[in-house]
Amino acid sequence: MAVTKVGVVGYGYWGPNLARNFYELPSAELVAVADAKPERLKQAQGKYTQLIAKTDYRELFKLDLDAVVVATPPATHYQIAKECLEHNLHVLVEKPITLKSVDALELVELAAARGLTLMVGHTFEYNAAVHALKKYIDSGELGEIYYLDTARLNLGLFQRDSNVMWDLAPHDISILLYLLGKRPISVSAQGMACVFDGIYDVAYVNLVFPGNISAFVHVSWLDPCKVRRITVVGSKKMAVYNDVESENKIKIYDKGVNSHEYTNGSFGEFQCSYHSGDITIPSIRFTEPLREECQHFIESIVNQTEPSSDGRDGLEVVKILETAQHSMSNGQTHQAISW
Amino acid sequence: MAVTKVGVVGYGYWGPNLARNFYELPSAELVAVADAKPERLKQAQGKYTQLIAKTDYRELFKLDLDAVVVATPPATHYQIAKECLEHNLHVLVEKPITLKSVDALELVELAAARGLTLMVGHTFEYNAAVHALKKYIDSGELGEIYYLDTARLNLGLFQRDSNVMWDLAPHDISILLYLLGKRPISVSAQGMACVFDGIYDVAYVNLVFPGNISAFVHVSWLDPCKVRRITVVGSKKMAVYNDVESENKIKIYDKGVNSHEYTNGSFGEFQCSYHSGDITIPSIRFTEPLREECQHFIESIVNQTEPSSDGRDGLEVVKILETAQHSMSNGQTHQAISW
Amino acid sequence: MAVTKVGVVGYGYWGPNLARNFYELPSAELVAVADAKPERLKQAQGKYTQLIAKTDYRELFKLDLDAVVVATPPATHYQIAKECLEHNLHVLVEKPITLKSVDALELVELAAARGLTLMVGHTFEYNAAVHALKKYIDSGELGEIYYLDTARLNLGLFQRDSNVMWDLAPHDISILLYLLGKRPISVSAQGMACVFDGIYDVAYVNLVFPGNISAFVHVSWLDPCKVRRITVVGSKKMAVYNDVESENKIKIYDKGVNSHEYTNGSFGEFQCSYHSGDITIPSIRFTEPLREECQHFIESIVNQTEPSSDGRDGLEVVKILETAQHSMSNGQTHQAISW
Amino acid sequence: MAVTKVGVVGYGYWGPNLARNFYELPSAELVAVADAKPERLKQAQGKYTQLIAKTDYRELFKLDLDAVVVATPPATHYQIAKECLEHNLHVLVEKPITLKSVDALELVELAAARGLTLMVGHTFEYNAAVHALKKYIDSGELGEIYYLDTARLNLGLFQRDSNVMWDLAPHDISILLYLLGKRPISVSAQGMACVFDGIYDVAYVNLVFPGNISAFVHVSWLDPCKVRRITVVGSKKMAVYNDVESENKIKIYDKGVNSHEYTNGSFGEFQCSYHSGDITIPSIRFTEPLREECQHFIESIVNQTEPSSDGRDGLEVVKILETAQHSMSNGQTHQAISW
Repeated sequence: MAVTKVGVVGYGYWGPNLARNFYELPSAELVAVADAKPERLKQAQGKYTQLIAKTDYRELFKLDLDAVVVATPPATHYQIAKECLEHNLHVLVEKPITLKSVDALELVELAAARGLTLMVGHTFEYNAAVHALKKYIDSGELGEIYYLDTARLNLGLFQRDSNVMWDLAPHDISILLYLLGKRPISVSAQGMACVFDGIYDVAYVNLVFPGNISAFVHVSWLDPCKVRRITVVGSKKMAVYNDVESENKIKIYDKGVNSHEYTNGSFGEFQCSYHSGDITIPSIRFTEPLREECQHFIESIVNQTEPSSDGRDGLEVVKILETAQHSMSNGQTHQAISW
Repeated sequence: MAVTKVGVVGYGYWGPNLARNFYELPSAELVAVADAKPERLKQAQGKYTQLIAKTDYRELFKLDLDAVVVATPPATHYQIAKECLEHNLHVLVEKPITLKSVDALELVELAAARGLTLMVGHTFEYNAAVHALKKYIDSGELGEIYYLDTARLNLGLFQRDSNVMWDLAPHDISILLYLLGKRPISVSAQGMACVFDGIYDVAYVNLVFPGNISAFVHVSWLDPCKVRRITVVGSKKMAVYNDVESENKIKIYDKGVNSHEYTNGSFGEFQCSYHSGDITIPSIRFTEPLREECQHFIESIVNQTEPSSDGRDGLEVVKILETAQHSMSNGQTHQAISW
Repeated sequence: MAVTKVGVVGYGYWGPNLARNFYELPSAELVAVADAKPERLKQAQGKYTQLIAKTDYRELFKLDLDAVVVATPPATHYQIAKECLEHNLHVLVEKPITLKSVDALELVELAAARGLTLMVGHTFEYNAAVHALKKYIDSGELGEIYYLDTARLNLGLFQRDSNVMWDLAPHDISILLYLLGKRPISVSAQGMACVFDGIYDVAYVNLVFPGNISAFVHVSWLDPCKVRRITVVGSKKMAVYNDVESENKIKIYDKGVNSHEYTNGSFGEFQCSYHSGDITIPSIRFTEPLREECQHFIESIVNQTEPSSDGRDGLEVVKILETAQHSMSNGQTHQAISW
Repeated sequence: MAVTKVGVVGYGYWGPNLARNFYELPSAELVAVADAKPERLKQAQGKYTQLIAKTDYRELFKLDLDAVVVATPPATHYQIAKECLEHNLHVLVEKPITLKSVDALELVELAAARGLTLMVGHTFEYNAAVHALKKYIDSGELGEIYYLDTARLNLGLFQRDSNVMWDLAPHDISILLYLLGKRPISVSAQGMACVFDGIYDVAYVNLVFPGNISAFVHVSWLDPCKVRRITVVGSKKMAVYNDVESENKIKIYDKGVNSHEYTNGSFGEFQCSYHSGDITIPSIRFTEPLREECQHFIESIVNQTEPSSDGRDGLEVVKILETAQHSMSNGQTHQAISW
């Protein structure tokens, strides 16, 4: 089978990781990189001696590429991805796919019209721990899902053209959509701009899903500790996924409340029993999620199949963030999302 | 000096701890216990052989007591505390002092009118780690305080006449008032009733304090892990108080964002620098906070001084919870608090 | 049934815990305490108002006691325990039962001759986590036991008439004897005297058990971290008991080496496979081990049954320590133990 | 300056890491790789497209190389390194440099006679955390050094031509030599062969350094947990280096025993006081130690300076291991080392 020829646009923070993975994939060939900053191109060429390097990404359209990976600042995603699609290139865009849902929709429709693969870099959908978590939920082992609580905190990389919610929450929201297999009904968000006026650096997002499932997402650029945690509380068991642990990332707790209540006594007491059994740390075979993601992109192109994190997935996350942003900017009332 | 004679009303979950501390305090004498359940009285008498035990707390008014400690279910606090004050007894009430702020106000005024000590059991105000945290804030070492985030989670003791916010958040709110030395301007809350209809078992409370300081309080009766954590984020340093650690409860992080921003480049980038220096775990000499609290109650009575966690302190916490409850029940919009 | 009347000799570091437990046990009555220091007696009487207190333990023989608990410095154990037995009192002695095995043997024989209960305070034999560990070993779930490694470290309480091995290793050695149900064949030990000349404050003890099972015991009074850990390595699974954890003290690892070796290749390689499955944290219902121990002492007296940690158990531990001490003082060669 | 041309012999477990670093270093050029297994060569060429690959390392002598890195099984180190030096190539050998001290000495003398750089891959001497630890020791901040305790445990990679001590302890021993700046006077070792007859998989090594400093090294291929820890106990402070932590690897404890002893009382008591102050986690700027090592190798060649971990360093570690092996095989008595 022919090897897929790939170009990478944007060689800043994340681009080098994408480039490395496509370089190492036998089914792909890393042909070219574009970045507005010459020093970054020099860095890329130091690593990959035969790489074509351009300061203008439009130069890549002249090469005989099959696909382009867009890892530029979010504000530029829409424009670059659109031009790539217009040049009949398959596109993998970093998250968030765009900053506006109308733009994301346009990309989705453009890709569909041209029969091109459009994928968004929701890396955690390619993470073995998230897969394991989904299996625990789907198998019913956790029972009825009551709620999820996520935290993604750090002393973060402040960005002017973004805020902490747009920067970090796409991960958590895409995980929630993936885990629950549902889209939220409504969303609210609260944010603070502690360091720079107008740039939210701490945010709390609440999503309500069908079936009365709530999810709370806490993201912060201003925390002393690196936290990446997802708690799933079910009626039978509870699960915690702690991505900061180098091993033993998932713990399954055989804990819960048994709702056999009864009333007695003068103080109107009621009593419920609890179960608190073993904790299990399942053995999970890890691979680099980004490598899985890159390989999945190539396979989707070659097999002409819809990628797991397709453009529509990216669009849904943007729509949720857009609605959350509206709530955050206007006093955090719950906003219904019209799908 | 004469020893203060103490009676304890309520010998369920917390009452035994209070009884033990008053029994052991040289300045106090544990004279009597009242509880509606005879088996609990038997248990108390097994431990303290000379203890007077009554199923009706009103029987305690016939004894020559100086003070009464109220550790009954919250819904009964107001009535019992009022009767104690009316019988000229100094009163220590467990948190929350009452379920309505009007009731708390009545108790405060009644105690003042009669020259009696009214104190609320906000134990954490007598905790050496919280004292240390306050010193770090007040000394300016953390810089300007940006925000606080607290979590108090567990597989909890469900109660019918309460909810998780009224059960657990009094601790966090009293700590916040103590640490900041300020009362919040407004509050909002979101809650979920996962297990029993109408009984909130997970809640997120947001308080806004003067000076644009926000605080987020997360309480849960439905978490697999015991979490008791307070994060204080300042412009210079950050502090984390982890009460679940057996030692090393407080960590001071010399971390932060330096807001010397500048603009450059074609993508309209801006850049800020970070500092990430040493972490310090201060040595703190611990004593049992409840013992400190009990001793402080006796001293306040003997010296006729206002206790640190006085009735007014209890009233403030109830007023905040009351307003938060209103927000929670009505769709979590922010509610101003009129002081 | 009549209540057993108990006296406690020694009210220093550990005595108060023993006194409290006998005070609280319904089947026992704490009648008297003896300690050479009057201030300690005052402290005891402050807690237990009807307690008889004596500076000379021989005064206790005049009271109508059934049993005596000896919690004095180790060098005095033999003499006090002997006199107690001679006065027809059942005896519980703190570990180590004596400093010489001949003395321990004498106590064992004296108790047997008089039909009295002689028990040693090897608390960990009454610890639910140790019981659980033994069940995992005995059931064969861990496979063939390869070796055990224990660590008991702290910034310790230096004592002049002892050393770190005699102070801390009795715990680990009694646990090893209990877990394996075997006595060691030989022992070696190495020690260091860092702070005070002639007082070993760090020691490493190696015991060889029948069946080629080795155990390494590391004890230290000079470590910055509190460590209390036992690792059991079996051919099928491995277990770690971490007593410093407040919960989740035992972890069972489904890990190991599969010894299907084979040879191939020019470098004479051989390869073995590994299994690394789930980790399980069993739910263990904890009670205070010291309470179990005290209750077991009373039951052994009343039922005239041999206690689990009987005098012979204490004798075995002393014999091992004695031999280890010989190795430590004479250059750490392995010493056979003649049983 | 001309770029140093490097060949790598051995592309198994560690070779790929060395190859990658030399590939990425601007001052070096990765020219060739040799490995007896063709599939490994294929893997290398997949990553580095212009790489020369040979199954016989002697083929590398025909190329115009400046230096060779030897990452083959330990038993082959001596022969390959010797031939490289004889072909006037600078050599970096993985640890242990050889399996016999006479062989290591021969390499050292051969390199000296020909003016070639001979370096051994004691990676931890290029580790920022070890550098920080040495600074704390050398500055006197820890006071007089009492003892060191190290643990390097894992479910390990069993090897037929080695044992756990030769595999893992070179790291700890090279760290100890580096930290203390001294060579040990004597050594003893105990080992167990649990899984395969004759292959020690658990070992405890004790080294005595001048100034009465002891060091205990625990290495294991049979532990369920990955442990990499070094504790340094001084008279003033104590330090723990935990390499398994992703951040906060070093903790400095202001803890210790104050040796102002005094005698009093009838039991011949003595008392000493303790200090237990703050714990500090210093901020350490990490780089990849292997990259530092590789760069140092190139610089030593170019500048004709003695590398930090030179052949003599490698020889000392082998001599210690050789003596420890003798103790281990012959019943663990302490063996003097003649330097």
